[in-house]
Amino acid sequence: MQTTMEQLVSLAKRRGFIFPGSEIYGGLANTWDYGPLGAQMKQNIRRAWWQHFIVQNPYNVGLDSSILMNQQVWVASGHVGNFNDPMVDCRQCKSRFRADKLIEEAASAKGEDIMVDGLPFAKMEALLEAYGVVCPDCGKTDFTNIRQFNMMFKTNQGVTEDAANEVYLRPETAQGIFVNFKNVQRTMRKKLPFGIGQVGKSFRNEITPGNFTFRTREFDQMELEFFCAPGEDLKWFAYWRQFCYDWLLMLGMKKENLRLRDHEKEQLSHYSAATTDVEFKYPFGWGELLGVADRTDFDLRAHATHSGENMTMQEEGGEPFIPYCIEPSIGLDRLFLAIFADAYDEEQVGENDTRVVLHLHPSIAPYQAAVFPLSKKLSESALKLFSELSTSLSVDYDESGSIGKRYRRHDEIGTPFCITYDFDSETDQAVTVRHRDSMEQTRIPISEVANWLSQQIKATS
Amino acid sequence: MQTTMEQLVSLAKRRGFIFPGSEIYGGLANTWDYGPLGAQMKQNIRRAWWQHFIVQNPYNVGLDSSILMNQQVWVASGHVGNFNDPMVDCRQCKSRFRADKLIEEAASAKGEDIMVDGLPFAKMEALLEAYGVVCPDCGKTDFTNIRQFNMMFKTNQGVTEDAANEVYLRPETAQGIFVNFKNVQRTMRKKLPFGIGQVGKSFRNEITPGNFTFRTREFDQMELEFFCAPGEDLKWFAYWRQFCYDWLLMLGMKKENLRLRDHEKEQLSHYSAATTDVEFKYPFGWGELLGVADRTDFDLRAHATHSGENMTMQEEGGEPFIPYCIEPSIGLDRLFLAIFADAYDEEQVGENDTRVVLHLHPSIAPYQAAVFPLSKKLSESALKLFSELSTSLSVDYDESGSIGKRYRRHDEIGTPFCITYDFDSETDQAVTVRHRDSMEQTRIPISEVANWLSQQIKATS
Repeated sequence: MQTTMEQLVSLAKRRGFIFPGSEIYGGLANTWDYGPLGAQMKQNIRRAWWQHFIVQNPYNVGLDSSILMNQQVWVASGHVGNFNDPMVDCRQCKSRFRADKLIEEAASAKGEDIMVDGLPFAKMEALLEAYGVVCPDCGKTDFTNIRQFNMMFKTNQGVTEDAANEVYLRPETAQGIFVNFKNVQRTMRKKLPFGIGQVGKSFRNEITPGNFTFRTREFDQMELEFFCAPGEDLKWFAYWRQFCYDWLLMLGMKKENLRLRDHEKEQLSHYSAATTDVEFKYPFGWGELLGVADRTDFDLRAHATHSGENMTMQEEGGEPFIPYCIEPSIGLDRLFLAIFADAYDEEQVGENDTRVVLHLHPSIAPYQAAVFPLSKKLSESALKLFSELSTSLSVDYDESGSIGKRYRRHDEIGTPFCITYDFDSETDQAVTVRHRDSMEQTRIPISEVANWLSQQIKATS
Repeated sequence: MQTTMEQLVSLAKRRGFIFPGSEIYGGLANTWDYGPLGAQMKQNIRRAWWQHFIVQNPYNVGLDSSILMNQQVWVASGHVGNFNDPMVDCRQCKSRFRADKLIEEAASAKGEDIMVDGLPFAKMEALLEAYGVVCPDCGKTDFTNIRQFNMMFKTNQGVTEDAANEVYLRPETAQGIFVNFKNVQRTMRKKLPFGIGQVGKSFRNEITPGNFTFRTREFDQMELEFFCAPGEDLKWFAYWRQFCYDWLLMLGMKKENLRLRDHEKEQLSHYSAATTDVEFKYPFGWGELLGVADRTDFDLRAHATHSGENMTMQEEGGEPFIPYCIEPSIGLDRLFLAIFADAYDEEQVGENDTRVVLHLHPSIAPYQAAVFPLSKKLSESALKLFSELSTSLSVDYDESGSIGKRYRRHDEIGTPFCITYDFDSETDQAVTVRHRDSMEQTRIPISEVANWLSQQIKATS
């Protein structure tokens, strides 16, 4: 059975994963707040990325740069000049759209799967006509020419509101890494190849955000910029392309919902030697999940030119050169949505019953375990076990309703292990562990539960 | 010996804790980027807060709400009307200042320790005169009257720039919690008392930011809003006041650098029943580190009034009421600075030598351990140990320079344990662990190192 967006949004809201932002005031278009379970799960994904891409990786180090940066950063990076969406207005109803998205949707409706992003405006205008695109709001066919719309949010810093104080909210975390390239290389005594990664908020004033948390104006990115010698770049591009794909599988994602899409030469940005999108099969169709790009020396060279800073490195006996850069860039919110959709299932149980279950990897699930006393008379001992496990894991304690109801509650939020403390536990000092996916039960000594859980979480990670 | 800000800023920059933001473009006033070691340490503090305040606490749950919120949130919260700094201009040189800070500095220069924040403007103007405050920039005494300056950053969301699309960057994370109060309570089936906490960026357009990362315009907050029945509030206020103080001690902070400062009645906000600042002895003097406030039902009541949403709870057989709220609010960057300053030491070693050492708690240190091969010939085995430890800890690998130099390098970044793999290790399968603070050395079997480290980190946490 195909999972729908409605099922995901409903579960997300019902169980405290994701709420509409500012909901009591009628919301604020396209903002979302992560509730208790969503906040924990988002943090688990973020932590897994940091652990795998930074801490465990001998080449890479982390960074945490400001959202507000000097205007010149965005002039040098090309964002002031070129970070534009192709905007088109309907002359009849005044609605505004992204031309590339209108075309892609029209193509998709005919069963065609085309990529319009990056094409010249003239070509897009021709495609609008070729596909007979009509305004989604009023049904007319009376579009303006396509114009550029800069997607950066602007604000003013300081006590006067003038152009000198104008700053942008960063549209990507990557530039915070490039401008710190020399600082990091020097203080960490790094030689090539090495990478710098960070996680943080970025902001893009999208014309048509949508599909729940898939495209939002405020979002978290996890970006790595991996620097190497020119000539080594395609080798490292292949390495990180595979590394990202393998990581998704390690997080428990299904192969059949993932595909690699290498950009054709004509789709590549002018500075990129190679780009691959990893796409996921969302309920609304295939869409980008993450991107890996060989950005050559474009960014460091641009900053060297604009700032006058020396961005070169030199290897023994060689000439100085500006390093090449491979960028695996992942949207945290988008990965959250993909994992959520990938894990969602409604299973037939017995004859007339279904259970909603999230098959989340134990390291990603909001709760790694839940502790139940069979009866409220056993609360004290069960709470003791809960406290003990909570020192290192995210654990829930639940004592209301039948054990069967508690299992179902935890199935739909993805808790992999439910631990019941019953009357026998008082004498045999053991508890029953019930597995979410197989629904099998195992009896385990209380003294071994913490270690057993750690093993289970590691074994699958 | 008293640590100076210069020593801290110098170490922070030299070793990759904190760099000036956008440095290659001449910076952007008062922005700072956390380098590799700073990013890891900041994350460790954040993680410790989340673990202690949320995961391990049976009352509390987490949240991760948007930075951009509906304008009405800030009208209801009082920020549109009242979130102002007392701004005063020098008529001679046109410089702008915060009147309260000018007065506090003048008082401090006379050895007096007064609190001006929150006083009426007329009283501040009288104090400016009483202390004979002169303009710090030009030395004249020709100030304008004090005026209000709203500290919220404004931007526009959407494709048109008009008032309807104006949004603020949140000046605190707390309001994201209040507007989600009912969503969280309902989906998590919470009864009073319970708390909701989150960590995230906030933005305040301060007139005079400064003192390194002490007061910045962009900063991370860790806020908990703890809801309870009216009448229980002062009990819970006392609880969280003590909880926060104890947590700072658990993180290894020195008692003599901390003090609790209870607000006098006349300093309290009109809605607050009690407020305590925990202050830290920074190199520039005592200053706020965190605040705990009894906010009564002010926030939930304001949102109930403005949104029409029912914010009441009801206990069995009782009347509905709006819960009271206790708020422990901690600035993550400020806590980082305090821990950094608290841990810094220059120690006499032998007769003519000193070592710079950061006595950081093992759970906070950027690296929990470092692995050294005694000789590069032993790299392979040492790297194996490094990889093994990296799966659960933040570990560095260092093979350059003498062991003594490597010890010093790690002393000044706070690495608590340095592990040397030497030629004997090949036969006895053991390594030498050197302790940062005592400089003592212990021989430990390789197979036990991972467990031993975990024990050490836990034992002190």
